[in-house]
Amino acid sequence: MVANEMWGGRFAGGPGKIMEDITPSIAFDKRLAEQDLAGSRAHVRMLAIQGIVSKEDAEAILKGLETIGGEIAQGKFVFKRALEDIHLNIESRLGEIVGEAAGRLHTARSRNDQVATDLRLWIRQACERAEAGLKALQGALLTQAQSHAATIMPGFTHMQSAQPVTFGHHCLAYVEMFERDRARFADARKRLNECPLGAAALAGTSFAIDREVTARTLGFARPMRNSLDAVSARDFALEYLAAAAISATHLSKLAGEIVQWSSPQFGFVRLSDAFTTGSSIMPQKRNPDAAELIRGKTGRVLGDFVALATVVKGLVLAYGSDLQEDKERVFDAADTLELSLAAMAAMIADLQADAGAMRAAAGAGYPTATDLADWLVRVLKKPFREAHHIAGAIVKRAEEMKVALDKLPLEEMRKLEPAVTDEVFSVLSLEASVASRMSLGGTAPARVREQLVFWGEKLK
Amino acid sequence: MVANEMWGGRFAGGPGKIMEDITPSIAFDKRLAEQDLAGSRAHVRMLAIQGIVSKEDAEAILKGLETIGGEIAQGKFVFKRALEDIHLNIESRLGEIVGEAAGRLHTARSRNDQVATDLRLWIRQACERAEAGLKALQGALLTQAQSHAATIMPGFTHMQSAQPVTFGHHCLAYVEMFERDRARFADARKRLNECPLGAAALAGTSFAIDREVTARTLGFARPMRNSLDAVSARDFALEYLAAAAISATHLSKLAGEIVQWSSPQFGFVRLSDAFTTGSSIMPQKRNPDAAELIRGKTGRVLGDFVALATVVKGLVLAYGSDLQEDKERVFDAADTLELSLAAMAAMIADLQADAGAMRAAAGAGYPTATDLADWLVRVLKKPFREAHHIAGAIVKRAEEMKVALDKLPLEEMRKLEPAVTDEVFSVLSLEASVASRMSLGGTAPARVREQLVFWGEKLK
Amino acid sequence: MVANEMWGGRFAGGPGKIMEDITPSIAFDKRLAEQDLAGSRAHVRMLAIQGIVSKEDAEAILKGLETIGGEIAQGKFVFKRALEDIHLNIESRLGEIVGEAAGRLHTARSRNDQVATDLRLWIRQACERAEAGLKALQGALLTQAQSHAATIMPGFTHMQSAQPVTFGHHCLAYVEMFERDRARFADARKRLNECPLGAAALAGTSFAIDREVTARTLGFARPMRNSLDAVSARDFALEYLAAAAISATHLSKLAGEIVQWSSPQFGFVRLSDAFTTGSSIMPQKRNPDAAELIRGKTGRVLGDFVALATVVKGLVLAYGSDLQEDKERVFDAADTLELSLAAMAAMIADLQADAGAMRAAAGAGYPTATDLADWLVRVLKKPFREAHHIAGAIVKRAEEMKVALDKLPLEEMRKLEPAVTDEVFSVLSLEASVASRMSLGGTAPARVREQLVFWGEKLK
Amino acid sequence: MVANEMWGGRFAGGPGKIMEDITPSIAFDKRLAEQDLAGSRAHVRMLAIQGIVSKEDAEAILKGLETIGGEIAQGKFVFKRALEDIHLNIESRLGEIVGEAAGRLHTARSRNDQVATDLRLWIRQACERAEAGLKALQGALLTQAQSHAATIMPGFTHMQSAQPVTFGHHCLAYVEMFERDRARFADARKRLNECPLGAAALAGTSFAIDREVTARTLGFARPMRNSLDAVSARDFALEYLAAAAISATHLSKLAGEIVQWSSPQFGFVRLSDAFTTGSSIMPQKRNPDAAELIRGKTGRVLGDFVALATVVKGLVLAYGSDLQEDKERVFDAADTLELSLAAMAAMIADLQADAGAMRAAAGAGYPTATDLADWLVRVLKKPFREAHHIAGAIVKRAEEMKVALDKLPLEEMRKLEPAVTDEVFSVLSLEASVASRMSLGGTAPARVREQLVFWGEKLK
Repeated sequence: MVANEMWGGRFAGGPGKIMEDITPSIAFDKRLAEQDLAGSRAHVRMLAIQGIVSKEDAEAILKGLETIGGEIAQGKFVFKRALEDIHLNIESRLGEIVGEAAGRLHTARSRNDQVATDLRLWIRQACERAEAGLKALQGALLTQAQSHAATIMPGFTHMQSAQPVTFGHHCLAYVEMFERDRARFADARKRLNECPLGAAALAGTSFAIDREVTARTLGFARPMRNSLDAVSARDFALEYLAAAAISATHLSKLAGEIVQWSSPQFGFVRLSDAFTTGSSIMPQKRNPDAAELIRGKTGRVLGDFVALATVVKGLVLAYGSDLQEDKERVFDAADTLELSLAAMAAMIADLQADAGAMRAAAGAGYPTATDLADWLVRVLKKPFREAHHIAGAIVKRAEEMKVALDKLPLEEMRKLEPAVTDEVFSVLSLEASVASRMSLGGTAPARVREQLVFWGEKLK
Repeated sequence: MVANEMWGGRFAGGPGKIMEDITPSIAFDKRLAEQDLAGSRAHVRMLAIQGIVSKEDAEAILKGLETIGGEIAQGKFVFKRALEDIHLNIESRLGEIVGEAAGRLHTARSRNDQVATDLRLWIRQACERAEAGLKALQGALLTQAQSHAATIMPGFTHMQSAQPVTFGHHCLAYVEMFERDRARFADARKRLNECPLGAAALAGTSFAIDREVTARTLGFARPMRNSLDAVSARDFALEYLAAAAISATHLSKLAGEIVQWSSPQFGFVRLSDAFTTGSSIMPQKRNPDAAELIRGKTGRVLGDFVALATVVKGLVLAYGSDLQEDKERVFDAADTLELSLAAMAAMIADLQADAGAMRAAAGAGYPTATDLADWLVRVLKKPFREAHHIAGAIVKRAEEMKVALDKLPLEEMRKLEPAVTDEVFSVLSLEASVASRMSLGGTAPARVREQLVFWGEKLK
Repeated sequence: MVANEMWGGRFAGGPGKIMEDITPSIAFDKRLAEQDLAGSRAHVRMLAIQGIVSKEDAEAILKGLETIGGEIAQGKFVFKRALEDIHLNIESRLGEIVGEAAGRLHTARSRNDQVATDLRLWIRQACERAEAGLKALQGALLTQAQSHAATIMPGFTHMQSAQPVTFGHHCLAYVEMFERDRARFADARKRLNECPLGAAALAGTSFAIDREVTARTLGFARPMRNSLDAVSARDFALEYLAAAAISATHLSKLAGEIVQWSSPQFGFVRLSDAFTTGSSIMPQKRNPDAAELIRGKTGRVLGDFVALATVVKGLVLAYGSDLQEDKERVFDAADTLELSLAAMAAMIADLQADAGAMRAAAGAGYPTATDLADWLVRVLKKPFREAHHIAGAIVKRAEEMKVALDKLPLEEMRKLEPAVTDEVFSVLSLEASVASRMSLGGTAPARVREQLVFWGEKLK
Repeated sequence: MVANEMWGGRFAGGPGKIMEDITPSIAFDKRLAEQDLAGSRAHVRMLAIQGIVSKEDAEAILKGLETIGGEIAQGKFVFKRALEDIHLNIESRLGEIVGEAAGRLHTARSRNDQVATDLRLWIRQACERAEAGLKALQGALLTQAQSHAATIMPGFTHMQSAQPVTFGHHCLAYVEMFERDRARFADARKRLNECPLGAAALAGTSFAIDREVTARTLGFARPMRNSLDAVSARDFALEYLAAAAISATHLSKLAGEIVQWSSPQFGFVRLSDAFTTGSSIMPQKRNPDAAELIRGKTGRVLGDFVALATVVKGLVLAYGSDLQEDKERVFDAADTLELSLAAMAAMIADLQADAGAMRAAAGAGYPTATDLADWLVRVLKKPFREAHHIAGAIVKRAEEMKVALDKLPLEEMRKLEPAVTDEVFSVLSLEASVASRMSLGGTAPARVREQLVFWGEKLK
């Protein structure tokens, strides 16, 4: 039997060959099999409770669905293009197994509310997987941060050395980003957790169904309140894709750092052989391939959001087949995000920081000039703007003499600001600078360690 | 004084002409003036409490900031390109007003944490404006729904008549969408409501500041926990843009409906002269211009999200000037969204539904075929799939005879299914069909009225 | 042998499990097999001509490549994930077939120039397929236009009836759009048709290769002039994607028209059963499924462009693994576009225009008001702006009297403009209106027929 | 007079307040003033030639248009929101100047064909400006390349040192990219250079106009062949935006290189004070601000393309007000691109390469390992794969001994490959490596100099 035959008796001709290529979604929507079976189980149980189907029919259907679930799990189920989508594939097979009763399953529902239910269930799990993947990555970062709470590296702005920070502090910045990503997935999950089942084609149904029962059975917080909205809304998929695209920007940033840190110019970290690849032509290469792949892959998640947003923007109520595009975009984004999170967590766990290289780099470029300016404010009571000017002039002098700031003779400083005393040298070393950043959220190792305790608790 | 001079004593040359074109952000970031002043007030008060600046200096600065606020409010403040951005414009003017003390304001902060604070404050308000705009639009839709809880119109899927629904039910579907949009802005607001101030350039500061005080003064829930994250994170702007882009898809849908409904082919609604425009050449035209403009404008919000996501994706920690792009994208999206929401609310309030045209359209295309199939299931106990086949064949017969389903003689139906009785006609009228959709969330007027009560309460 | 082993002797460990998931591209780049073989054949022939490999080795390699080509064509070739990509899969198999000589094939090239060559060859063919698909679609539109050069339908602006046009004229508007799309693919093809082979890893090679020979053999216009550019440029892929995305907007428009025209409100066209689908619940439905699917699918092509542009934007010279994302985006866009073009051509060929319904719709809404205004200008010598005002007032009167413009009594018109004579009625019918639009490119059937001749020649 | 009054006598009410905010486009479309005047001049001349308006009226109109042009040039023209757009602003002012005759200008045209003509004229110039801007940038790159044809720097793949290249070669890679960008703008210009004027509202006109004349007068290659297409097509704007977005990816890449090269970790280039900025807090900073701003700004061009593509995708024929969005996206992209090109050209001219730092960096990381492998192939006749293995092992040994490849004792090499002779050292220096890359397009200084001659000619 083909899908066409299931639609009813009104179609004289069959679909053209090109339609067989463009119409079927089974190639990708078979990934909704588990969700579709869950939806059908909940639906038929409710139908039996409400007396819309007999208990016998319901039991036969449930047994049939169980058999199908087993066949799919074992890879024995034959998905047929001619049956178009996962819903008709399952219903058709159910008919083979339980006979006429199978035809009662679709009472009081439509593929419109069915697929909306399936996709919500799928994305609900995708949110949970994203949260778990993010948490594992946070864990890997936390472990690095614990080893490097006091490891000094250059803090960059504009890719110029700005002020020294610690590598632990740097890792924890990403822990913060990924925490907000997790919260976005949690919010998306919460918001999508309403049940469309029972909205039928678009208007509800005349059968005396109980939507509270199906919603509850499927773990939804409540049934959706408007049947037109229930079958046509895809903002839940867009919200998932937006959360994924935003999280992808964070993954891309971190991947970009690893690529940069692995270059000979930085040399801040070393990845093991497991996370680098060689070249087909250059025997010496150790490419941070995984980091680059993650950085590249995250671009496509943005593309997935754009693709679906463009589709949804153009539609009116209620359902249109354009929405068939929703699933591939969501699956692609979820696969990409989950693989990237796992690869990133493994790579973070793998990488070895080179504290010596980091410290050496942190010393270049007068990174404690701000400390000098702050000292002028604090000790000499200069207004900040004036202090900033004096410090700038002193840096210029040190640059001309090609010495670091803490190696510039006091008399040179005094030429530019006579009131400077040699107490100033107490703030010009990298260690002093870092240790002094004791403001809440600052890079002082003591502050970083407080944060480590906080995150250790939170991620437990 | 130019910005260059404020940076300090190290720059020998001045910025080239082209730099004067590309660097200054004052043309757009002057919109942050109110937020920048609020941030400075909170900062200087805290500095005084902590004894970092004297009470006298703090008071002078506060008075100066008040003067500046007044000048800006009255349009007397002269924004200077040479001073690059809103921060330096205000600080420079403060120097003119209060003299040397002005130079103490920037103690223990940087433009990096300052602009992050300003932008969070601005977007916090933008979230609130978006929520308010959405609520007003929901109110307009609710009013229409109240007038049309029982007004029958065709429910479309695939732009084909599917089943009759009520116009009130249709309006409430949009109320649901805009409710989720509101919730997304509320979540975005909640998540961004953390204070970056005190993160300074990127590493925190050695001054003994109290970030809890500034956070509280500015209405933030807490200070951000990591200074690197505080100055570089823009996911809050992306989340706002994503929420706006998703909301824009809903506005575009509704605008698309109005364009369609206004066409002579539909004739479902009529907009007053105030919301239509004429043609420069065709004297008879009444174009639903506002609806089209909204539908068009929403495309750019997606563009704004793409633009900023692309920028953020490519950066490493901490701050880079690429981020200067954040403000224009956010302002553009906010302006677009807020104007579109206001215009849509006004247009919804304005539109007159033509109940007669809607009902006439609802009768075309055999929209009660599902009711027939359901009757076969309920009364004749047919499995749904078989009922669907029989109903399809009956529709085909009616089509051949060019009659509506409730006008098809019983004997014709009996040729296709002998067990049909004339009780079947009780379900074939539009009114019967609509009234029968009593499932939760269904289109039955009784159900719609329940929803009206619910929303009336909720939107009060 | 795994890819790792092919890279050389320096790697102690093996790639981690997650790397096996993220690194291999063979799952998708096996679609480049034909191009990769062509590139290798051209390369080895040139190496033999230049005396870099012996004739015997070259012949063995060529024979081996032929064997591999046969294996792939017959589906017997075993693609191995462990060998990572199509290049190493083929080279490894070549080693099994011809032994040591296989190792000489990769002389003076790198996977970097190899993959760039493969992708250019693939997209070159994709441009040709797109052009052919567009031409077939133009042909289908032309056939419709030939049948309907004089079939009157409403011309819409703002989805309001504007002026009558012919359906043939409307079809030819799309022929124009698809002609420009073809030209864009032709330009893209021409611009990408330069050969990167011989750029090696990024710097060229010290072997005395002859790049003119390989370029010529592969049908390229010339070798690329800069080796760094040759391996890193992907603007050719972006240009293909942009051309596809723009073409997709045209497909989406046309699909949107078909969806609209198929709705009962319009009823302008009817698709056969082959191009409509039914509903799982509503027995009467005839959904223009294919048109909706095309409209939806075109959104993803835009997403593909965004995804790759975002990736490319973030990279510096020369090659980075981020670029591995190029292939899937291009394949996805090409598959989507080609399927959509084929489905659209078939659907256009299938659709039956309902001339009666079109004409009836064309009469609604005073579409000849412009003709009235133009008559006032031409005959009464009114300035256009004044004529526009008078015509507007006459339309208003007709509207009040609920009559068509050509049914409004002359005396009513004279109340508003005393100089009107009954000659005016000669321009107020639909046929007169359409026939009068004789300006070049106008909708007059005579003009449309001229265009049909032009396109008949051009598309031969 | 307000726009509303110009539309004619049918509108009873006036536009609502919110409509006054959303409808007018004059705030941005006043940038089309010059094009609009040119279009009107061409149109009225043709009307006079065809005898549709009198010579006297035509002359009065032309004189009036000249006056208006002068007023606009001198900033004296008052643009009025109430007059909605540039077309009505000019026409209304024309009426003030020349009286009744002004009303004859709009004969046989519509705002639909008028705005399409204006925008094509504007983008035609934008294409020319983009080409000129790109050419200037190529010139700046060429000058750098001339100074550094033999300056050795590391060639990177995966941000790892791959093989040495010259800085001149690197600069020329960008010259190639920008050449293709120029060609894309040239193709876009050629394709858009067709004249919509005379298509009127959508159907052509009944006046005996001569579209060849107006097309020729305005410098278009020909009139557009289909009036529906003429008023609705915006693929020319999309093609411009796509070309701009692709060019922006190249600008972003180059900007990214400059940011990286300016970092202390690289130190390859130094920008003058004119192209760097300081920090409000850190006195030592020299931020490559302009490069970052360009890198950031290019993201928005992609956003502009997405925004307009999304709008166009959703429309059917012919004109809809959604298209009003086209202008702001195009203006924004053009402004962004042109400013970025100018800033980049100035920055390239400004930057000083540090040949010493480049050479030092080029020596790190065994960049001549490929030369070693190639030597093994060429001299010892090893198959490339085997040579690659041996070279990898030798690199590993050098790494263990912490020496450069050309400092590794011959006996160490012989342990791994006994046949190596000391002739091998002739290929292991950076200079030898670079000089050996003599393949067409290779990095050998001799090859680079050939390219310099080629480009010197081409860009003259």
